Amino acid sequence: MTRHVVNFNAGPAGLPRPALERAQAELLDFQGTGMSVMEHSHRGKAYEAVHQEALQLTRELLQVPASHDILLLQGGASQLFATVPMNFLHPGKSADYIMTGNWADKALAEAKLIGTVREAGSGLVDGKPVRVPKQSELSLDPNAAYLHFTTNNTIEGTQFFDFPDPGTVPLVADMSSDFMWRPFDVSKFHLTYAGAQKNVGPSGLVVAIIDKAWMATGSTKIPSIFRFKTHADNQSLYNTPPTFSIYLMRNVLAWLKELGGLPAMERRNREKARVLYGAIDASAGFYRCPVEVSARSVMNVVWRLPNEALEEQFVKEATKAGLEGLKGHRIVGGIRASTYNAVSVEGVTELANFMREFQRKNG
Amino acid sequence: MTRHVVNFNAGPAGLPRPALERAQAELLDFQGTGMSVMEHSHRGKAYEAVHQEALQLTRELLQVPASHDILLLQGGASQLFATVPMNFLHPGKSADYIMTGNWADKALAEAKLIGTVREAGSGLVDGKPVRVPKQSELSLDPNAAYLHFTTNNTIEGTQFFDFPDPGTVPLVADMSSDFMWRPFDVSKFHLTYAGAQKNVGPSGLVVAIIDKAWMATGSTKIPSIFRFKTHADNQSLYNTPPTFSIYLMRNVLAWLKELGGLPAMERRNREKARVLYGAIDASAGFYRCPVEVSARSVMNVVWRLPNEALEEQFVKEATKAGLEGLKGHRIVGGIRASTYNAVSVEGVTELANFMREFQRKNG
Repeated sequence: MTRHVVNFNAGPAGLPRPALERAQAELLDFQGTGMSVMEHSHRGKAYEAVHQEALQLTRELLQVPASHDILLLQGGASQLFATVPMNFLHPGKSADYIMTGNWADKALAEAKLIGTVREAGSGLVDGKPVRVPKQSELSLDPNAAYLHFTTNNTIEGTQFFDFPDPGTVPLVADMSSDFMWRPFDVSKFHLTYAGAQKNVGPSGLVVAIIDKAWMATGSTKIPSIFRFKTHADNQSLYNTPPTFSIYLMRNVLAWLKELGGLPAMERRNREKARVLYGAIDASAGFYRCPVEVSARSVMNVVWRLPNEALEEQFVKEATKAGLEGLKGHRIVGGIRASTYNAVSVEGVTELANFMREFQRKNG
Repeated sequence: MTRHVVNFNAGPAGLPRPALERAQAELLDFQGTGMSVMEHSHRGKAYEAVHQEALQLTRELLQVPASHDILLLQGGASQLFATVPMNFLHPGKSADYIMTGNWADKALAEAKLIGTVREAGSGLVDGKPVRVPKQSELSLDPNAAYLHFTTNNTIEGTQFFDFPDPGTVPLVADMSSDFMWRPFDVSKFHLTYAGAQKNVGPSGLVVAIIDKAWMATGSTKIPSIFRFKTHADNQSLYNTPPTFSIYLMRNVLAWLKELGGLPAMERRNREKARVLYGAIDASAGFYRCPVEVSARSVMNVVWRLPNEALEEQFVKEATKAGLEGLKGHRIVGGIRASTYNAVSVEGVTELANFMREFQRKNG
């Protein structure tokens, strides 16, 4: 009998079972071709159809307007921390960054190696990243090359529900852990990008959605491979793409569409968050979420127990019960449940029940 | 019944059946964990063991000396066309490039955007890339930052069997289509790199082997993500690696070791080349290999037929017979059979028999 598991990993995260079952069934023989999809040429008909379907499903699910190109890239979101300023932080300009946690820090650090940057706001309260700034708290440079922010902070458990309004400055967002779980207005962003390994596929793939007119202003002095335009001009087939990862993303997006698309997925995800934060809030302080209520992430729910020994015990017993991946990030400690698309309401309810039972025994 | 196929694709290429079967068997449940290997955290025990085994098998099979680090990178060999000069083509220096075909051209073009480069030799005869230069034909800059060359030219079907001796200049090689099919002396190279999608795994993964002392001289002014040292310092876990691709590479290398390692693989590959070039040479000119005999690639065998109509017919009938991927690259036309590790001697013999039969009917 297969072990029962609910996967709360922060990424690589769990994938929808139907997407994996589809991959398993045809792993050795893709559509009667006698070959695995990963053994097909990236320029052959069989793979080409998968590639186009992955792009088309992204466009359809997010209602990406014709003004924007969808790119499938490699190197992780971390690579875009570098390629965004390489393309768009032109000499003589400065870029604004909103500092809401560890990944924003990393994005800023890479940009500093390219050009001039400014901090435009933070989520700090007494030095702790427990919220995200309101529009009125931002200090925006009206001449900035762009405004960059991290829409969901995987480690800190905070999330922007209202996006900053940068005026005429191009808005750029790392949405790695905030992508494809609900609809959002793509047209408000000049660039959004997301590592696939949270909500849309395995690791090794990045989805970027970019305004075409802005893309055309990118530097032509940097290597071709790092220009967004190179990949757009070649429909993300400039060089060999990670074909199997894109195939799996296609499977995940097909499952998402079947389920009712992003409105249905958002309802499901909000219900999961309701159940989990409900369990925390009903614990009379045994479980404490350090994040301000208005910024509580729907994707990564973090909380503490009365002491670290209890936290360790919690993770250990949860793992034994098949509730996997609950240890908080090493930077902040505590508990973290990542409740990406593949986690079901039932899985989260199981965790909430475990929390009540654990408190009853140890509270 | 599954369709019988011999896969001669140039990359993504065929993978050894046992490596794929292993992946299929445990795709939904990796080692009894109840999760797919691609659903595991890249910092968890289950994946960590796979990661280390992939590195260890590479070290063992190629006898990589302690002086060299093995890196698992993203972005394709095309990305290293840029990151090699970004790291090592320091201001005031020049780098030498040997020009033997399309991929060497691309490597040079990216390097030109970074700094000063020189052409140190070519494989051209009357403007055609039908051979590789001998040592005596090279024009080497003794002060070059490095000497870069492409050990096997996938499109042109040429291969270096004796590597250039650059003296004290660091030797750098794109070995994408020349990697892990035979033993070679890693210590002679400061850096070798290879896209996995030929001999060692699916696309979306690059293996690089780099001299540690040289690596330490890399630029610290470029973004962290593009420094080789960043990845070495973090055992290729600086950011989320393409975990499933690395898992598949592990499966392929385990199969390779089981088969007898690189000496056994080299015997098998040389036998395949003998059969295929034998069929060409025995055709009394019906099949013509444009490459000089001494430079004929063991990995990518290219040939022409009397006219393009016959070439088209050849590819069509071969495909019907289950001999897949034989169309030459669009740049050069003709026929190409890529005979990477996963292609068996039997598969190549099947192709040779088809060639004889095709000639009998159409010669």
